[in-house]
Amino acid sequence: MKKIILLLSLSIFAFSCIQKQERIITSKKLSKEEKIDSTNIKTLFNSVLVEGESYEWLRDLTQNIGGRLSGSKEAAKAVIWGEKLMKSVGLDSVWLQPVMVPHWVRGEKEVANYSLDGKKKNVPICALGFSVATSKKGVSAEIIEVKSLEEAKALGEKMKGKIVFFNRPFDNTLINTFAAYGGCVGQRVRGAAVCGEFGAKGVIVRSMTNGVDDYPHTGTMSYGDLPKEKYIPTAAISSRAANILSADLKTNPKLTFYFKQNCETLPDAPSFNVIGQITGSETPENIMVVGGHLDSWDLAEGAHDDGTGIVQSLEVAALFKKNNIKPKNTLRVVFFMNEENGTRGAKKYAELAKLNKENHIGGLESDAGGHTPRGFSIDANIANTKLLQSWKKLLSPYGLHDIDEGGSGADISPLKGENVTLVGYRPDSQRYFDYHHTTIDTFDKVNKRELELGSASMASIIYLMDKYLYNNTPIKL
Amino acid sequence: MKKIILLLSLSIFAFSCIQKQERIITSKKLSKEEKIDSTNIKTLFNSVLVEGESYEWLRDLTQNIGGRLSGSKEAAKAVIWGEKLMKSVGLDSVWLQPVMVPHWVRGEKEVANYSLDGKKKNVPICALGFSVATSKKGVSAEIIEVKSLEEAKALGEKMKGKIVFFNRPFDNTLINTFAAYGGCVGQRVRGAAVCGEFGAKGVIVRSMTNGVDDYPHTGTMSYGDLPKEKYIPTAAISSRAANILSADLKTNPKLTFYFKQNCETLPDAPSFNVIGQITGSETPENIMVVGGHLDSWDLAEGAHDDGTGIVQSLEVAALFKKNNIKPKNTLRVVFFMNEENGTRGAKKYAELAKLNKENHIGGLESDAGGHTPRGFSIDANIANTKLLQSWKKLLSPYGLHDIDEGGSGADISPLKGENVTLVGYRPDSQRYFDYHHTTIDTFDKVNKRELELGSASMASIIYLMDKYLYNNTPIKL
Repeated sequence: MKKIILLLSLSIFAFSCIQKQERIITSKKLSKEEKIDSTNIKTLFNSVLVEGESYEWLRDLTQNIGGRLSGSKEAAKAVIWGEKLMKSVGLDSVWLQPVMVPHWVRGEKEVANYSLDGKKKNVPICALGFSVATSKKGVSAEIIEVKSLEEAKALGEKMKGKIVFFNRPFDNTLINTFAAYGGCVGQRVRGAAVCGEFGAKGVIVRSMTNGVDDYPHTGTMSYGDLPKEKYIPTAAISSRAANILSADLKTNPKLTFYFKQNCETLPDAPSFNVIGQITGSETPENIMVVGGHLDSWDLAEGAHDDGTGIVQSLEVAALFKKNNIKPKNTLRVVFFMNEENGTRGAKKYAELAKLNKENHIGGLESDAGGHTPRGFSIDANIANTKLLQSWKKLLSPYGLHDIDEGGSGADISPLKGENVTLVGYRPDSQRYFDYHHTTIDTFDKVNKRELELGSASMASIIYLMDKYLYNNTPIKL
Repeated sequence: MKKIILLLSLSIFAFSCIQKQERIITSKKLSKEEKIDSTNIKTLFNSVLVEGESYEWLRDLTQNIGGRLSGSKEAAKAVIWGEKLMKSVGLDSVWLQPVMVPHWVRGEKEVANYSLDGKKKNVPICALGFSVATSKKGVSAEIIEVKSLEEAKALGEKMKGKIVFFNRPFDNTLINTFAAYGGCVGQRVRGAAVCGEFGAKGVIVRSMTNGVDDYPHTGTMSYGDLPKEKYIPTAAISSRAANILSADLKTNPKLTFYFKQNCETLPDAPSFNVIGQITGSETPENIMVVGGHLDSWDLAEGAHDDGTGIVQSLEVAALFKKNNIKPKNTLRVVFFMNEENGTRGAKKYAELAKLNKENHIGGLESDAGGHTPRGFSIDANIANTKLLQSWKKLLSPYGLHDIDEGGSGADISPLKGENVTLVGYRPDSQRYFDYHHTTIDTFDKVNKRELELGSASMASIIYLMDKYLYNNTPIKL
């Protein structure tokens, strides 16, 4: 047996040390109340890792309904799916909240190309949400490359009759990829508004991604207050095609670029936020929201954006039910409609909350993908921010180290107020923009354990917020 | 423009907050020396994220050489590949260190099945490394399920002439998946030794994974000091097939299981550790090792295990060269041979280090996959452990929060000594056992940024160790 022990000694060495660490985690010095919290948090994690349901819910949503852009028949199916699913987990009440949403349709697959040295190069593009169509024949014009809105504005009249190509790449040195996105997304959202003003014929925008790939990444844009007659068509180009086009423009600065799309904005369509709740056991008039968005772009299954947020939010409530943890305040799960192009669901929800004098004390949003948990960002008053940060010792054993000031999310931020504690769930961001708004944002990119750890992370902070914000926040009616 | 600003206000809100956080990261209160360190660490991260090379190295290794089990012709190719690659990054010297390695071969694809109610069920299995073959016709016997080595031992003579089925699953409630592996791997390594002793005809072991999948996960086993005539064949069964077999045994406890494999242990084969170094600028006689293992299992490309460790280790040295950071001590990169089934390379390296009176002051190993960075585990004396933990404020902006006591790795741990600081790189563990030792441990499972962040994480701690252990460790010759 000695030989076995010798062989094992090296390879097993690391694991015994890890097991020791797991023991250390649970034996940290905690107050009596913190020990109760620590035990309840462990219960939530154990529960989800053994009997979690969110992964199968996500499979169903992404694979049986798929892409579900606001106003589409798939979005309507997703509403029915959401309502049925909420009812199945035994919430105290479930209802639909009507909201009118934009209804933009992509139409036929887009086409783009240009010729260099007599050789035609096809280019992967996709129309941006809210863009107008080109004429039926498409748009053909000289293409000028710029790296920013400022550089485009400086061109002024020189862009008249031309296509403007925004090609600012992500700053890959930013560790948080959302920061890199924030530094580039302006060209996607406002490029066509800026260039339409000066009479450009179209706008092509480098896809929002860290990598070099062949997928055009769609997303929303806005013409702002540009007069309708100045609207010009705009599309995203894949990052690899953007690199090639840029190189080709160095060889031939007078390249003629062609693209065609027949997208269209139809009249607003009726839709719904899907809402369900567990009524609070002590102060049901105080409401804590947990949610994500039910709509997605049309190109893919909307797995990481934001199927994961939806199923994690419902799993928070399901974990409370299964483990017999009764929230003191009302715990409300909201599947918001239309985050991608309009946030109409978020606005309607906040508008009605105000109208009905509902007292929201807190909210948690999951809309940054379903990857391995890293922490939360907090948008709250100073006292509550410090309170949430004091929970680090309870949360760090689960990889939740980053508990920082920051924004919460597009769907809950309209609820902002002095005594409302808003939180954004922050999973690891490295892979997120590989898939974001593309055809490959699919179910197989989601890891079951990472998704479930996210659900339990969210359930844990909701458990703590429910317990401690309860005493901390004055009731305002 | 107001409408644009309104539209942007919600969706961009989160990003401006994140950008604020990135600013906070770099403005933490640091001493003068820490500011220099912080700047150098940021340089290493920026460098890898803009001009990292490890991803393309990994593509080459995994896709052009592939699986490279010790003694195979692919392992021999990998040695040549490694030597050439090391030379290409401009190390001061590169050499091969001869070592004899075990040479086990799998032979033909394994076959397994059983019949229930007259219906044959085929079962995905793969032989475990070092297992003997079945007879040419295969082994057929009644199969008994157990959940542990203890339970098997308790069967005693009852297992004679039967096949023993070890079916202990991972404890999925353990957050660190390596801890779950540590709790199960004993049945894989020692199952056949224990059951051979009592005259069992074969051993089937549930695959080492958190999930339920169709891939048999191979791995090493040992007969220990069992006499050769008692050796019995052993194989891994996929976790899904294990679940089905277990359920079928409840219906029919007298099931007859059949399996066939013709693996074989050939005479030891010559191979090499691949070594290269940057000679220290101040105390070249002090050596700091960084490495991973060049061999892999035969079933797949060996991407996460341990192609990523290899390319990250070399990228550490490449980053030092590119950014003109000269190590005071000798920085030695080692591609160890034969970690998977024997750790002969590690033993040879440590043996020769002792024989040649080399003074190793530290080591860093990457052999836990190429996922997003989480931290390091430290195997060192108390003073140096505390020293390394004091670097948390420099490392946490990069997601490196877990800097804990623990093991380092199978390849560097033979260098253990009172004044040797050994460190294991610890990326996120959630996805690791999805791929571990299976046909799907392939290049496409590795994310470029996660891999590169790992390289820079490793380069950063090596930079700090080189600078601060230098003054801290007495030179022992």
